[in-house]
Amino acid sequence: MNETMQGLKRTHYCTEVSESDIGREVVVCGFTQKTRDLGNLIFIDLRDRTGIVQLAFDDASDRAIMEKAAKVRAEFVLMAKGTVRKRESVNTEIKTGTIEIFVTDLRILNEAKTPPFEITDETSVKEELRLRYRYLDLRRSEMQYAMQMRHRIVKIARDYYDENGFLEIETPILIKSTPEGARDYLVPSRVHPGKFYALPQSPQQYKQLLMLSGFDRYMQIARCFRDEDLRADRQPEFTQIDLEMSFVDQDDVMTVNEGFMKRVFKEALGVDIETPFRRISYEEAMERFGSDKPDTRFGLELIDLGDVLAHCAFKVFAGALSAGGAVKAILVPGGAEKLSRKEIDKLTDFVKTYKAKGLAYTRLTPDKETSSFEKFLSEEEKTALRQKVGAQTGDVILVVADGDKQVVYDSLGALRCELAKRLSLIDESKFDLLWVTDFPQFEYSEEEDRYVAKHHPFTCPKLEDVDKLFTDPAGVHALAYDMVLNGCEVGGGSIRINDPELQEKMFEALGFTPEASHERFGYLIDAFQYGAPPHGGMAFGLDRLVMLLLHKDSIRDVIAFPKVQNASELMTMCPAEVDEKDIRELHIAVMEKENEE
Amino acid sequence: MNETMQGLKRTHYCTEVSESDIGREVVVCGFTQKTRDLGNLIFIDLRDRTGIVQLAFDDASDRAIMEKAAKVRAEFVLMAKGTVRKRESVNTEIKTGTIEIFVTDLRILNEAKTPPFEITDETSVKEELRLRYRYLDLRRSEMQYAMQMRHRIVKIARDYYDENGFLEIETPILIKSTPEGARDYLVPSRVHPGKFYALPQSPQQYKQLLMLSGFDRYMQIARCFRDEDLRADRQPEFTQIDLEMSFVDQDDVMTVNEGFMKRVFKEALGVDIETPFRRISYEEAMERFGSDKPDTRFGLELIDLGDVLAHCAFKVFAGALSAGGAVKAILVPGGAEKLSRKEIDKLTDFVKTYKAKGLAYTRLTPDKETSSFEKFLSEEEKTALRQKVGAQTGDVILVVADGDKQVVYDSLGALRCELAKRLSLIDESKFDLLWVTDFPQFEYSEEEDRYVAKHHPFTCPKLEDVDKLFTDPAGVHALAYDMVLNGCEVGGGSIRINDPELQEKMFEALGFTPEASHERFGYLIDAFQYGAPPHGGMAFGLDRLVMLLLHKDSIRDVIAFPKVQNASELMTMCPAEVDEKDIRELHIAVMEKENEE
Repeated sequence: MNETMQGLKRTHYCTEVSESDIGREVVVCGFTQKTRDLGNLIFIDLRDRTGIVQLAFDDASDRAIMEKAAKVRAEFVLMAKGTVRKRESVNTEIKTGTIEIFVTDLRILNEAKTPPFEITDETSVKEELRLRYRYLDLRRSEMQYAMQMRHRIVKIARDYYDENGFLEIETPILIKSTPEGARDYLVPSRVHPGKFYALPQSPQQYKQLLMLSGFDRYMQIARCFRDEDLRADRQPEFTQIDLEMSFVDQDDVMTVNEGFMKRVFKEALGVDIETPFRRISYEEAMERFGSDKPDTRFGLELIDLGDVLAHCAFKVFAGALSAGGAVKAILVPGGAEKLSRKEIDKLTDFVKTYKAKGLAYTRLTPDKETSSFEKFLSEEEKTALRQKVGAQTGDVILVVADGDKQVVYDSLGALRCELAKRLSLIDESKFDLLWVTDFPQFEYSEEEDRYVAKHHPFTCPKLEDVDKLFTDPAGVHALAYDMVLNGCEVGGGSIRINDPELQEKMFEALGFTPEASHERFGYLIDAFQYGAPPHGGMAFGLDRLVMLLLHKDSIRDVIAFPKVQNASELMTMCPAEVDEKDIRELHIAVMEKENEE
Repeated sequence: MNETMQGLKRTHYCTEVSESDIGREVVVCGFTQKTRDLGNLIFIDLRDRTGIVQLAFDDASDRAIMEKAAKVRAEFVLMAKGTVRKRESVNTEIKTGTIEIFVTDLRILNEAKTPPFEITDETSVKEELRLRYRYLDLRRSEMQYAMQMRHRIVKIARDYYDENGFLEIETPILIKSTPEGARDYLVPSRVHPGKFYALPQSPQQYKQLLMLSGFDRYMQIARCFRDEDLRADRQPEFTQIDLEMSFVDQDDVMTVNEGFMKRVFKEALGVDIETPFRRISYEEAMERFGSDKPDTRFGLELIDLGDVLAHCAFKVFAGALSAGGAVKAILVPGGAEKLSRKEIDKLTDFVKTYKAKGLAYTRLTPDKETSSFEKFLSEEEKTALRQKVGAQTGDVILVVADGDKQVVYDSLGALRCELAKRLSLIDESKFDLLWVTDFPQFEYSEEEDRYVAKHHPFTCPKLEDVDKLFTDPAGVHALAYDMVLNGCEVGGGSIRINDPELQEKMFEALGFTPEASHERFGYLIDAFQYGAPPHGGMAFGLDRLVMLLLHKDSIRDVIAFPKVQNASELMTMCPAEVDEKDIRELHIAVMEKENEE
C-alpha cells in the first residue's frame, strides 16, 4: 500500500519556493520529473503544475530516507518536507534554479509504471500515442500551460461580458432538430418512441428567444455539436463564446466585442491592440485579398487587370473577361531571385488545387525577362499591365484568369498566403485584427438550384437592399460581420430580422412556402409575433481563438480531451458498442450492413 | 414595416432614470407593460430587465406623437426619447415612482399580438401554458430576477474557485457509455456503424484523470444528463458545479467548499453564515433525524426506545426489536392541543406511505391521557419511556416500530418534517447548513443480490475499515460527505481511491472479476498505474442550490428552458420526429411497436 500524507500539508507549489524561503521548512508535492542518484547524493526534480523544484538528499540524510529516495522513479507521486537551502550548481533554466529542498520527510504517495513516452516538451511522439495516453500527455508543461491559458481566457471573457451587463444563461443541449445547416447529432428518446432530440449546432434560436424575453444582453460559453466529416481543424464538439444584444445596431455589437479582444490581448498576453479594428467590406476583401478572411500582415494584394486587358486578343484572358470572370495578378517584389521557373511550376500545381486552369507569369530578372503570356499582348497592353501592377526589375508577376471570378479569388487568395509563407513575409509576433462586413445575404447553391442563406435565414439584410430580395438576390447585402485574426475567422455574427413581415419575405426569397417555413421554424415564427426587440449578436470559436493566441497549429492542442478526424476519442475508445438491451429500450435497432438502404 | 432606431441610442435602462435626471433628455427602450389613455393624457409603463419607468404624453405633445402613443398596446416594443420630469401622482411601488419621461420622440420598433397570458408576477396561469410560451413567461420580473440571480451565483462560483487556484477545464459531452449508475442518453455514431456515444452523467472519470494529469485543482460548471423516469424535481439535463483537488484530505475539500458557500450567501443574498459547518455522521443523522439529509431548523428528533423496551411484552415492539429492527419515538411538545385523534389518523396514513405498519401514540391532554399502546406496557416501562422522551402534560408521543430499521428511519424522518410543516415550526428565513460524513461504503442491492457502491466504485473507504472489505462490507465507511441545506442535499463528494491495489480490492468486493472491471473501466485502471496523486472532490447540484437560495419550489423556476416530467420541452415540442434519411445515415432503424421485444 502507498504511504499517506498523514501529518503533512502542502505549504508551497513547487515554483513558489524561492530564495526568500532559505532556512525555512516547506512541504511540496507532485510528480517525479527525473532523479539523479550519485550514491551519497540523490537529486529528485519534483514537478507540479507550476514547474519544477529540486529535492536533495545527501550524507546528512537519514539512511532510511536515502533508501527511499533511491527507489523513486520517473512519475512517482511524492510529498516531501524539508528545509530550503542554496544550491551548489545553479540551474538557470528553471525558476527555482538557485535553491533546493533538503528533504527530512519523504512520502512515496504512489508508484508509477514507466510511461510509454517521456513527459517532456521536446517530444517527437506521434500524436496518436499522445492522445491514447492523454492523461500523461497533459502532464507536459506545454499542455499544462495551454490549459491554464485557456482557463484564463475564458475567465476574462466571463469577467468582461459580466461587467458589460451580459447575463450568462444556459440553453439546453437536448433540443429539437432543425433541418437547415450542418448535420445534427441525434439522441433517440426512450420515453417517446421514434422521436429524437438533437444536440445544438449553436444556441442560435434560444439566444434570439432570450432577446424576445427581454434579457437584453446574453452570453454563454456554449458547447456546440456538428456531425460532419471532420476537416483538419474541426471537432465534433466545440466551444463558442456566444452572445446576443437587444436594441443595438451593427456598430454596437462590434464595439463591445472589440473591447473584449482588447482585454484578452492585454490580460492574457500583455499585448496592447488598437481599437476600433479596421473594417473592410466583403467585396473589398475578395477583390484585394481573394478571401473573406484576409491575412493583412503582408502585402501581395490582388491587382485587377480587367481594365488594361479589356480589348486584349489573348484568348485565355479575353475569354475569362467576356464570360464575366476576372484576370488578376499578384506582384512579388524582388521575386525573380527567389522564384525560379521550377518554383513557379510548383505554384502552378498549387493554384490548380483551387480549380485555376493555370498560372501565367512574368519574371523580370535583371539580365532577362521571361513571360508565359506577354507575347500574346500588344506592346501597349504589356506596358499598361506592368504599370498597373507597378512591376520593376527583379519582380515577378503572377496572373490567374478564369471565367468564374470565385476561382480567381480562391486560387490567388490561397497563393498569396502560400507565397508569404515560402518567402517568410509574415511577422509571427504580430497580431492582425479586422472586421469583414457587408457579406452577401445569399449564395447560390448549385446542389439545391436555389439561393440559400449565407449565414442563416434570420440574418437581417441591409435596409436599402430589401427591395432587391426578389429582383436581385445576389445584390442583397447582409448586416453580417466576421472578425478576422491573422487570416482566420475567429468570430462572426449579424443583426437579426425582428420584423415578422420581413422574416416572411426572407423565407419566401429562400424558396420556402409559408407551410414549409412554419413546419421548420413554427414556434420561432410564433414567438416573433409577441414583440421582438431589434437584436443582434455574434459568436467566437473559442478553440480556434485560444489556438491562435497561443500560436498553436491545431485546436487539439488547446482541448483537454479532443477527438480525432474520425470523431473518435482514442483514450476511452469511444464511440463504442453498448448493450443490446440499452439499444432496445430506445425503440431502435442497429441495421446490419446488408440491410441498409 | 417597423420603425427603426435610426438616430437614437439608449442612454439609460428604465430604472436607471432617477430624480437626479430631472430636466435631462434620456432615451429608454423596452416592452410595454401597460397603457392608460385618458384622451388628452396618455401614460405608458415601459419595462426592461431592470423594471419599469413611466412614459408620459399630454397637451404639450405633438399630435402625431399622441396618435402614435394611442396605438400602443401591451408588449409593443418601444424606444422613447424625452425629458425627465417630476410625476404628479407618485407610485411608491416602483423604483422610478417619483418621475416620468415626457416623450418627444416615440418609435414603435415592433407591434405585438395579445399574449396568451398577462406578463405579471401575480399569475395563476398553468405551468404548462407558461412553458409553451416560455419566451413570454421569462418576461415576468420574477423569472428575470431568477435568471439574473442564477447568473450572479454562477459568476461567484467561477470567481471564488479561480481565486482559489481551480482551473476550469472542459470535459467532453460525447463520451463512452459506462454500465454503472443511471441510464445514459446514447448518441448513435454515423461514422462508426453500430457504435454509440453517451452523454455524461457527470464528468467523474475525466476529472479524476485531470488529477492524474497534474492539474491539481479543477472546476467546471458541467452539464450532466440522466435518462431516468423523472421524479418531481429532476431534469434530463442538469448542471453541476463540479470540482476536484489533488494532495488533499476530506477536511481540505470541505473547507474550500464551505468558503464557497460563505461567499455565495454573502454576495448573492447578503447573508452571513458561519463556518465551519456542523458535521454529523451518517449514523447519527439516521438515528437522530431518520435521514441522511436532516433538516435541523427544528427539533422533533427521533428518540430510541430500544433500551427502555428491551424486555417489553408488547408483541409489536418486542417483535421489531428481536428482528434486529428498532422502536423509535418523536415527542411533540404541546402537541396534544394541535394533534387530534383525527389528525393522528392522518399521520398514520402518512407514515404508511413509508412502509411503516402503523403509528403508535400517546396524547397527554391535561384532562385525559389516551394511548394506543401504553396498556401493553408495564408501569415501569411506561414511566421509563415517558422519562426517556421527556414527555410532559400537553405533549404527544408518536412511535414507530419495525423489524427493518430503515422503515423506522424513513417513516419517522419524513414524519418529523411533515409535523414541522403542519405545526409551522420552520423559520423559513433561516438557512441551515451541515455536512453528513462517514457514509457506508456499500449498500445492499436486493435486485442484484450483492453489495453495490453507495457512491461509486472509486470512493475511498476509511483506512481503518479497509480490512473489513470482505468480512463485514456493511461496516465499511467511506470518505464521502454530503452538504445539506435546509434538509436538501446540495452537494456531495468523496476522497477517491488512488492506490491501484486498493482499487482492485474494491472491484473484487463489488463482485467484479478482474476481466469485468477491466472491460468496464479499462483505460481508467491503466491510467492509475502511471502515478495517481491522492485526490478528492465534490459536486454541487447547481439547479437545486439556486432554487433553495431563491426560495423557489421547483428547479424549473431557475432554468431558462426546462423540460417537463416526460422529458419533453413544450415550447419547441422536442423530442420530435426526424427525416427517415437522417436516421438511416446513423445505421439504425426505428422499431415499430409490434416489432419490439
